Amino acid sequence: MLDKIDLDQEMDKQKFHESFPKLQFELGTLQRQVVDNKIPVLIVFEGWEAAGKGTTIGTLVRRLDPRGVQVHHVKAPNEEEALRPFLWRFWLRLPARGDIAIFDRSWYGRVLVERVDKLAKRREWSAAYDEINEFERQLSDDGAVIIKFWLHISKKEQKQRFNRFLKDPFRGWKITKTDWRHHKRYGEFLEAAEDMMKKTSTPHAPWTIVESHDKRFSACKVVRTVIDAIKSAVAKRAKKAARLQAKPQAAAPDGEGSGSQKPTLLSKIELKGKTLTKEQYSAKVDDLQEKLVEYEYRMYQKRLPAIVLYEGWDAAGKGGNIKRLVEKLDPRGYSVIPIAAPKGDEAVRHYLWRFWRHLPKAGHLTIFDRTWYGRVMVERIEGFCAEEDWRRAYDEINEFERQLAGFGMVIVKFWIHIDADEQLRRFKERESTDFKRWKLTDEDWRNREKWPLYERAVSDLIEKTGTRDAPWTVIEGNCKYWARIKALDTLCNALKSKL
Amino acid sequence: MLDKIDLDQEMDKQKFHESFPKLQFELGTLQRQVVDNKIPVLIVFEGWEAAGKGTTIGTLVRRLDPRGVQVHHVKAPNEEEALRPFLWRFWLRLPARGDIAIFDRSWYGRVLVERVDKLAKRREWSAAYDEINEFERQLSDDGAVIIKFWLHISKKEQKQRFNRFLKDPFRGWKITKTDWRHHKRYGEFLEAAEDMMKKTSTPHAPWTIVESHDKRFSACKVVRTVIDAIKSAVAKRAKKAARLQAKPQAAAPDGEGSGSQKPTLLSKIELKGKTLTKEQYSAKVDDLQEKLVEYEYRMYQKRLPAIVLYEGWDAAGKGGNIKRLVEKLDPRGYSVIPIAAPKGDEAVRHYLWRFWRHLPKAGHLTIFDRTWYGRVMVERIEGFCAEEDWRRAYDEINEFERQLAGFGMVIVKFWIHIDADEQLRRFKERESTDFKRWKLTDEDWRNREKWPLYERAVSDLIEKTGTRDAPWTVIEGNCKYWARIKALDTLCNALKSKL
Repeated sequence: MLDKIDLDQEMDKQKFHESFPKLQFELGTLQRQVVDNKIPVLIVFEGWEAAGKGTTIGTLVRRLDPRGVQVHHVKAPNEEEALRPFLWRFWLRLPARGDIAIFDRSWYGRVLVERVDKLAKRREWSAAYDEINEFERQLSDDGAVIIKFWLHISKKEQKQRFNRFLKDPFRGWKITKTDWRHHKRYGEFLEAAEDMMKKTSTPHAPWTIVESHDKRFSACKVVRTVIDAIKSAVAKRAKKAARLQAKPQAAAPDGEGSGSQKPTLLSKIELKGKTLTKEQYSAKVDDLQEKLVEYEYRMYQKRLPAIVLYEGWDAAGKGGNIKRLVEKLDPRGYSVIPIAAPKGDEAVRHYLWRFWRHLPKAGHLTIFDRTWYGRVMVERIEGFCAEEDWRRAYDEINEFERQLAGFGMVIVKFWIHIDADEQLRRFKERESTDFKRWKLTDEDWRNREKWPLYERAVSDLIEKTGTRDAPWTVIEGNCKYWARIKALDTLCNALKSKL
Repeated sequence: MLDKIDLDQEMDKQKFHESFPKLQFELGTLQRQVVDNKIPVLIVFEGWEAAGKGTTIGTLVRRLDPRGVQVHHVKAPNEEEALRPFLWRFWLRLPARGDIAIFDRSWYGRVLVERVDKLAKRREWSAAYDEINEFERQLSDDGAVIIKFWLHISKKEQKQRFNRFLKDPFRGWKITKTDWRHHKRYGEFLEAAEDMMKKTSTPHAPWTIVESHDKRFSACKVVRTVIDAIKSAVAKRAKKAARLQAKPQAAAPDGEGSGSQKPTLLSKIELKGKTLTKEQYSAKVDDLQEKLVEYEYRMYQKRLPAIVLYEGWDAAGKGGNIKRLVEKLDPRGYSVIPIAAPKGDEAVRHYLWRFWRHLPKAGHLTIFDRTWYGRVMVERIEGFCAEEDWRRAYDEINEFERQLAGFGMVIVKFWIHIDADEQLRRFKERESTDFKRWKLTDEDWRNREKWPLYERAVSDLIEKTGTRDAPWTVIEGNCKYWARIKALDTLCNALKSKL
């Protein structure tokens, strides 16, 4: 494929000076629309060393308002990054809606240099194709524009450029031994690059090969491509807006159409009899907590990461349950991440961004008090996102969790279940107890009125996202003692089977 | 000092169970006021290994709403952190207003373990006292509560605790060779700790020594101290609000009282004759840019960090000037940080936070397009902060820059100066040029009307913040060619003298 590219394409100086400033101006103007339409833009530069990535990026950003542009120069992962799934550091660098992020090298390093230099295992880099495609599709579905360039030069041209650099005392250092080693293995990189383009060229994130022997030709092609991609994204955005307007959201869609009549999964949970006395509880809790201390230690030694997800009805006892889970643990080995409505930097990015941000590093445990399942519960029910958004989220969540499991992460998901009577009893208790009253808000009462909607939503999500790698555990919660023991026990078993 | 502490203090079990839950409840309730009053709270735990920091922190947070609490376990700096001033990583961890950040070990590592284990040079750790005091005072002046605990146990007690830990198969690993080595040097640490407390006990951030042989006594003392500190901060906050109300801000204070009549520093700048023809410019610019490429290379080799600050009138040509400055540089060696109104995570923290966040690492260059001087220009003139806030800022900025210079950073500060006629000419040109029109906003016209206020503010800041380590350079900007050459030349000279 790449050997068919006509690298002799050129643009003469005069034509360039006529057309290029106009292109830059057009791009500068388009940036306003990027901001106004709140479109996140990701521009990826891959290609041969000395193909002109730095210069091209410089030309591209010259007429842009720099307040909306970040350029990321990607090198080998540092120690913090190496202990997390490889996409982690790129999630962290996602642009806010309306910003443009430019990647000088990118997540494709995984299937290029890491593959050829054998820094990643075959299993890792071949799995990366799926992960990358999922990553880009998720962002694209969220409205992002993704533009990917491969700056192409021949082996001969590369050699000439290296030699030219070497003659320059202050630029010669850019050409390292590694570069020469890679130059010799041009053929292997070519093969990896072709494989990469074949497997990751998608309609929403296509590769553009840029013939880069001639700087002027190359610069024009890059800017022209960016302009076209942004224009079509703006049009697509307008179309989506029109579509959503034509088909107004039900503020509270009542489930899966006719399916809403059949008994829900939750309604079949038997709560009766799932109780423990205080004595039974006390007899068990210490042992389980001690066991968890052991596992925390062994997790650290084996560099095993784990996450525990807590979801459940208001007043189901999530907080108290988490407290018992971590009570004896070394605080340096775990974090509890409480999730409320997104704010600040979180509110202007993909909904999964803030969860990626808080992933544990290998050897650590992270507990999420409420989770990404908010997308298919509260956001679904309250209409905080469009129907197509939450319907798509089941797949996105499964992909996300599969990526984590693929990294070796233990995933434990709890739904703490109580019935409506028990909730009412607890609300009333909170109301009448001085030091509990602040826990009860008007929102809790409003949510309670939507019980059937939540029951449907929760049943749906448990059915759709209960996977082998990331199964749901429904915890019968009318008796808090029972719930605490079951949570401890489930987590211990999940860790045990991996350790 | 520490040897006078009565470590035998105890609290019996019954008294503890009566009083402690009440304290926890009181603290939980107070957290609402922290949120409502937007007070950032920093709680520092230092003390002997095995003194119970982890347990105490656990007890402290148990009744708090975890959504407003972050616990930071501080270890040795990682590679990214080691290349920046030592306070950098703590600035990054500052709580948002209304949040509580708990530090399990802290910036005091610099004057404790880094001092005793000789990880920092004497010059570094002794300078750290000033830097720490400035850091804490700046935060306190911004409304933060700072509470610092030293958890104290005797050498004998420590040894007993270490031995007890070692008997536990899953906790024994916590006691490392380093801990034993430190145990043997208890005396040296004691001396360092006493020195630290003497030098960093301030009215706004006092140390509390906690007698930690008895867990119950220790827990009560810690929670009680936190409650008192927060209560007094809430009262102080109310007082400040009342004070500001009693003495309403002038929306646009016209400078230093009677002083506003004397000619300003800026008015004395001679712009006439400071011009270059295009030919003169072309003859010089390449050489200077090439020289800067050389310096960029040598900066990297010598791990020298540098920052360039750009301030100037609207339409003074900052953007074009910056472009020529970096035109030939390797983009991996520098960043341009454009500064607009703070948003997201920036808006809820100390105004210097976002600048700390963007500091270059050693060997790199960062260019700020607008800077922290916004505090004493637009924020002063528009009344975005109280008068006492911007008046205090001159000192804060000098301290900040002195800390950077102390780390070895080169600091170059530009005020690009044009006169009011030239500005008008440029505004009109922008208005009548298609591709420049977007650059001109209503705000530019409004700012122009406030020219005399800005002139006074800029003259003040140049007088008050021009220091030996971080001098101001006023760049005559009516002729853009002149301005570009002068900026390049000034930066080159500043780097040269350090390289």
